[in-house]
Amino acid sequence: MIFVLKPGHSQEELDHVLELIEESGLKPHISRGEERTIIGAIGDEREMQNLPTGAIPGVEKVVPILKPYKLVSREMKDVGTKVEIRGVTIGGKEISVIAGPCAVEGYDMLKDIALEVKKVGAKILRGGAYKPRTSPYSFQGLGEEGLKYLAEVSKETGLPVVTELMNIRYADVVYKYADMIQVGARNMQNFDLLKEIGTLKKPVILKRGMSATIMELLMSAEYIASEGNTDIILCERGIRTFETETRNTLDINAIPVLKTLTHLPVLVDPSHATGRWEIVTPIAMAGIAAGADGIMIEVHTNPERAMSDGNQSLKPDKFKELMEKVKKVAEAVGRSV
Amino acid sequence: MIFVLKPGHSQEELDHVLELIEESGLKPHISRGEERTIIGAIGDEREMQNLPTGAIPGVEKVVPILKPYKLVSREMKDVGTKVEIRGVTIGGKEISVIAGPCAVEGYDMLKDIALEVKKVGAKILRGGAYKPRTSPYSFQGLGEEGLKYLAEVSKETGLPVVTELMNIRYADVVYKYADMIQVGARNMQNFDLLKEIGTLKKPVILKRGMSATIMELLMSAEYIASEGNTDIILCERGIRTFETETRNTLDINAIPVLKTLTHLPVLVDPSHATGRWEIVTPIAMAGIAAGADGIMIEVHTNPERAMSDGNQSLKPDKFKELMEKVKKVAEAVGRSV
Amino acid sequence: MIFVLKPGHSQEELDHVLELIEESGLKPHISRGEERTIIGAIGDEREMQNLPTGAIPGVEKVVPILKPYKLVSREMKDVGTKVEIRGVTIGGKEISVIAGPCAVEGYDMLKDIALEVKKVGAKILRGGAYKPRTSPYSFQGLGEEGLKYLAEVSKETGLPVVTELMNIRYADVVYKYADMIQVGARNMQNFDLLKEIGTLKKPVILKRGMSATIMELLMSAEYIASEGNTDIILCERGIRTFETETRNTLDINAIPVLKTLTHLPVLVDPSHATGRWEIVTPIAMAGIAAGADGIMIEVHTNPERAMSDGNQSLKPDKFKELMEKVKKVAEAVGRSV
Amino acid sequence: MIFVLKPGHSQEELDHVLELIEESGLKPHISRGEERTIIGAIGDEREMQNLPTGAIPGVEKVVPILKPYKLVSREMKDVGTKVEIRGVTIGGKEISVIAGPCAVEGYDMLKDIALEVKKVGAKILRGGAYKPRTSPYSFQGLGEEGLKYLAEVSKETGLPVVTELMNIRYADVVYKYADMIQVGARNMQNFDLLKEIGTLKKPVILKRGMSATIMELLMSAEYIASEGNTDIILCERGIRTFETETRNTLDINAIPVLKTLTHLPVLVDPSHATGRWEIVTPIAMAGIAAGADGIMIEVHTNPERAMSDGNQSLKPDKFKELMEKVKKVAEAVGRSV
Repeated sequence: MIFVLKPGHSQEELDHVLELIEESGLKPHISRGEERTIIGAIGDEREMQNLPTGAIPGVEKVVPILKPYKLVSREMKDVGTKVEIRGVTIGGKEISVIAGPCAVEGYDMLKDIALEVKKVGAKILRGGAYKPRTSPYSFQGLGEEGLKYLAEVSKETGLPVVTELMNIRYADVVYKYADMIQVGARNMQNFDLLKEIGTLKKPVILKRGMSATIMELLMSAEYIASEGNTDIILCERGIRTFETETRNTLDINAIPVLKTLTHLPVLVDPSHATGRWEIVTPIAMAGIAAGADGIMIEVHTNPERAMSDGNQSLKPDKFKELMEKVKKVAEAVGRSV
Repeated sequence: MIFVLKPGHSQEELDHVLELIEESGLKPHISRGEERTIIGAIGDEREMQNLPTGAIPGVEKVVPILKPYKLVSREMKDVGTKVEIRGVTIGGKEISVIAGPCAVEGYDMLKDIALEVKKVGAKILRGGAYKPRTSPYSFQGLGEEGLKYLAEVSKETGLPVVTELMNIRYADVVYKYADMIQVGARNMQNFDLLKEIGTLKKPVILKRGMSATIMELLMSAEYIASEGNTDIILCERGIRTFETETRNTLDINAIPVLKTLTHLPVLVDPSHATGRWEIVTPIAMAGIAAGADGIMIEVHTNPERAMSDGNQSLKPDKFKELMEKVKKVAEAVGRSV
Repeated sequence: MIFVLKPGHSQEELDHVLELIEESGLKPHISRGEERTIIGAIGDEREMQNLPTGAIPGVEKVVPILKPYKLVSREMKDVGTKVEIRGVTIGGKEISVIAGPCAVEGYDMLKDIALEVKKVGAKILRGGAYKPRTSPYSFQGLGEEGLKYLAEVSKETGLPVVTELMNIRYADVVYKYADMIQVGARNMQNFDLLKEIGTLKKPVILKRGMSATIMELLMSAEYIASEGNTDIILCERGIRTFETETRNTLDINAIPVLKTLTHLPVLVDPSHATGRWEIVTPIAMAGIAAGADGIMIEVHTNPERAMSDGNQSLKPDKFKELMEKVKKVAEAVGRSV
Repeated sequence: MIFVLKPGHSQEELDHVLELIEESGLKPHISRGEERTIIGAIGDEREMQNLPTGAIPGVEKVVPILKPYKLVSREMKDVGTKVEIRGVTIGGKEISVIAGPCAVEGYDMLKDIALEVKKVGAKILRGGAYKPRTSPYSFQGLGEEGLKYLAEVSKETGLPVVTELMNIRYADVVYKYADMIQVGARNMQNFDLLKEIGTLKKPVILKRGMSATIMELLMSAEYIASEGNTDIILCERGIRTFETETRNTLDINAIPVLKTLTHLPVLVDPSHATGRWEIVTPIAMAGIAAGADGIMIEVHTNPERAMSDGNQSLKPDKFKELMEKVKKVAEAVGRSV
C-alpha cells in the first residue's frame, strides 16, 4: 500500500501515517520527491484494506498494491479449474453448452425443450423455478413444482440441471433437486446468499451483476470460495450501459481479462447480454472466439407465448443452427463442443 | 400498447397480431401509413405487458402507453404521502435528517454519536447491524448484538432507529428492534425480500440500486406496496457511471423526476453518493434545493478508525456545520429542518 | 409519430395537437382508450422530428415510428455496400485487415512496420499524422511530414493508407496524401467535419464515439451520406462504461445490430476497445465471429518506446499470431482473410 | 510514478525499469515487499507520462503520483479565478446568470428574449449561431447572420453575449461578434479547436463532454491555458448514463470536486443536464446550493415552435420564477444574484 501525502503536510500528519502503518504490522518506507512525499507500507497490506484512508489527515491518496481477492486468483493457482457436474466438465478443452427455457412453465414444455437441446448437443439443462421479475405482476415461477419437473426431466434425459437460487429460504429445496446452482445477476452481491452457497457441496454459476466491475465479480466469487466451495463458474451476461438497442452490453473484453486474473472457468450468456434472439447466435460465436469455456442459451418451443424472456429465446431450429456455427468456431480455436 | 409492423409484413402476420390483442381482451385499432402499419391495442394493456413482443413475427417494435406501476404512481394518488416513524414525519414540510454511523460498532460509540446528532437536530438514528461488504474479509456487522444496541440507544435518546435488512432470515429480529427498515442498494431487486417487507407493518426506506433506472426503483416500490405496505420512502444514493473521482454519481435529476411520477417521499444520501466526506455538505444542500424530503448522513466520532465507510463519514463538528447550512437552504425553499 | 395525451387533458390541448399535426402536412388519427387518448400522425413524420414535443401542453409523450436516418438504412438498400480503396474491397466475403502504428513517428519505423504487416496479410496501412491527445504535453503527431511518409511508404509497399482527419483546416492536405480518411471517435459528432468529408471523393472510416449510441453513429454516417459520399465504413472501437480493467468496453452486440440496421460495412478496432495488447487477439477473433467485415490493429516494432498507444500495440510476431488465429475464425464463419 | 513489478519478474526486467527511469531523468527508489517489488521514480514524473507503461516487460502496473494538469490546478493558484466579460464578473461572490435561446432564430425573437431575461436579472445573453445537431436534416443555425443579431442585440441591451464556436474555420467571425466563446460538449476534445481558442483574447466557457471524466475536462482546460488564455469557465451540463427519464444526468458531485481541484469558475447548465423544462428550476437551485458560480438557462418565448431544444426551454414567466427561487438559494449560501 502506498500513501501519497498532500503537498504541505505537517510533520504530525506524517508521523501519524507511520504510526497507522506500524500498528497494522507493516513497515513504512519513505520516499521524498520534489512535489510529494510517498510512504510505502511493506508487508501484508490486506491488514490495512479496511482503513478508511480518505479520512486520514494529510493524505492525498492511497494506492493498494495487492489485489483484494486471493483464493480465486491466478496467483493462488496457475492452472485452470475444471468443474464437474454429474459427468459433465466445465473448464476443459470442450465447450459446455447449457440450454433450456428461461422459466420452467410445466413438465411437458420442459421435457420437449430438453429433448430438443439434447439432440443437438447441449450438455446441461437450464430452467428457472424461482424467477426474479422487475414487476410484481409478472409470472414469478412455479417454485418447488418447477424444481420437481427439472429433477424429473433430468432423470429422464440424463441431462444435469442448473437453476437459480434467489433466496436463502429455498437453499435446501434447490439443493435437493438441482445439480448446479445459479446465482443471478441481481444477487451477485447478496452476500448472505453467497456465504450460504459457499457451504453447499454443489457447483455454482455466479453471474456478473449488471453494474458489477470485474473486480467485484471476483470478490463475490471469493465470498463463496472463502466458505469452502471452489466449484465456481463465472458468467458474463452483459452490463448496463447507455446503449438502448440491446437489453445489455456484453462485455466481451471481460472474458480474456478474467482468464488472466482467475483460474475459474468463464461462461457467456448471449441471451441476457443481448435480449434479442436475432443476434444471440453471432454473440455466442464471439464469446467462444474470445475464449469462453461455455455458453448459456435460452431456448423455447414457442417464444411468443413464453412466460418470461421470450424476446431472447431461440426456437429449437434456430438453436440447432447456433450449435452448428458454434461448433465451427470452437474448432477454429482448438476446442470442441 | 402500440404495435409497429415491419415494412413488407404479410397479411398473416397482421392477423396474428390482431388475434393476440383480442386474446388479451383488448381492442385493436389499425392505422395504415405510407411507410408503416401501426396497431393500437385499446384497453388495459397491463394484460399484455408480459407478452414477449420481440418474438412476434412481422412486428418491428412495441410501445407501451401506460406505466407498469400503479399503486405508487401519482395518478393513483395525487397528494404526497407522509410516513410516520414513532412521531417523526417524513414527507411533510419539514426536512427529515437521519444520521448515525455506517455500522454499529459498539454501544458506547453508538450512544455518543446518537447524542451528538440529536443535539444538532437529527430526528432519526441510522446504524447497520448487518453490513453488505464487497470483501468477505471485511467487518460484517455485529448482527443481533448491534440491533440490541440500536434499540437501547433509541430508548435512551428518544430517536427512532432505522437499520438495513439484508436477508429474509433476519426479518423477524430486525422487525423486533427497528422502527424503520432499510432495503440497501444491492437488494433493491431482491424481490423476495421486497415481498416479505411488504407484509411487515413498519415503514421502509428503499434505496435505489446502483444501476437501477428510476422506473425500476418504482417497480421495486410497487412490489412492497402490492403486498400491503405503502409506508415507503425512496432514497437516491448515487448511481454507477464512468466517473472515478467519486464513489458514485448522485442523480440529482431523479429527485424532481420522482416527484412528478410518484406520491412517495424522497430522501437523498450524500454520503454514499459521493464517498468523500469533504463534499457531503454541498451535496446535502443540493439535495434539499432540488426538492428532497430529507437526507441520510453518515456520522462517526473517529472516521479514521471506522469499521466501514470512514471515508464518507462526517465528524460531529462537521455534521453540525452541515446542519446549519442545510437549515438555511431548507428555509430558502420554504421548508424547515 | 404517436402522441400520447396526459390523462385529464383539455379539449383545447387535443385540438392544438391536431392542428400541429396538420400544419406539418400529416393526418391525425385519434384512438381513445380508457386511460389515455392517443393520436397517430400519418404521413412523413420526418417533417415533425424537429418539433419540441415535450413542450406541447397536454402531451405526455411522443413516440417516433420511423428511424431518423434514411440513406444509410437497410430499408434504403438491402444489399451490403462494398467500399473499394485502391483495389482493396471492404464489405465483401474477405475480411479486411488494417494495421500499422498508432502514430507515424518517422519514415523508417513506418516502412518497417508496413513491411511486417504486409508480409502476414494486412491489406491497408494505418498511421496517424495528426494525433488527438488528452494532454497538451503529449506528442501531437508529425503533421504533413507524417502524411508524406505515409504516401511514400504506400507507394513503396503497394498498401493503401488510411489516416485521421481531425480538423477541416487539414482536409486538403489529408485528401492529397491518404487513400482513405478516418474520423476519430472524438470527432464522430464534429458535424462540420462530417459535412466536409461528405463532399470529398474518398472512402471514410467513421469511428463510433465513446458515448455515442448506435443510432447516433448512424446519424453521423447520414451526415456524410447526405453530402454525397456513401463510401462509409463504420468502426466499433469500444464505448465508455464503469469498467476500469480495460480502456473501453467493446460493444460486440453493436456488430450484428448494425448489420440489421444499415448496409454499410462494419469494422472492429480491438486495440482501442481494450487498451491492452495481451487481449487484442481474442477480441479481434470475437469481432470476426460476430460478423465484422474487418479489423483495425495497432502494430509497433517497439511498443515500449511508442510515442502513443504503446500499451495496446502488438509487436510484429504477436501480430503474426493474431493473423493466423483470425484466419481460422474467418474460415469458420465462411469468410477469408 | 510508482512501478509495481509482477511477482516472479526477472533481474533483467528490474534493471530495464531502472534504466527507463534514469533515462527520463528521474531517480529510482526500490522497496522490496514479500509479495511485490515496487520502484518509485523520484523527480518530475511528467517526463514519463507518455511512457506506454503497459508495454514494459515485468511490470504489473504503474501508478502516477502527480496530476497531469498544471496551469489549471489549485496547486498552481490557490485563489479562485475571476473572469470578466465586458463588466460582468464570473467567479466572484455574485452568481452569474446566462440566459437566452438555444439557437438564434431571428432578430426579433432574440431581442424579445434578451429583454425578458435582462428584466429579471440575467447578466449575459446566450444564443447559438452555429448549431451542432444530431441529424443533418435539422436546423443548423443562421451562421454569421445569427452572430450579427447577437452583436446587435448585445449593443441595444447592454448584455454581453456568448455563442458556440464549433469549427476553427469560424474562429475569426465568432471572435469578431461575441464577447465570450463557448466550446460545446461535443467539442470538448476537439484539441485543435482548444488550441486555437487558447490563442484568442476572449473568455471561454468550456462545457464538459457527455462522457468526459472530470480529469479529462481539466486536461481540455489545460490545452486552452497552455496556449495563453486562462479566462476559462468550466460548465457541468450532464453526463451520459443508463438513465433514460432525462436527457443527461447532471453530475452534481462534479461541482464541489472541481472546486477542490481547480481555481477556475464552474457553471451549471440545468437545461441540457435535464432536457426537460419542468425540472430545470429545481436543478438550477441544486447547482447553486452545491457551489456553482453561475447557471446557463435556455429561454424561449414560444418553446413549442423553437427550432432546437424547445423541450428544455423555459418561457419568460417560468424563467422569472426560476430567478426568484435561485435568488433565495444564493442568499442561503452567502451569495447574491
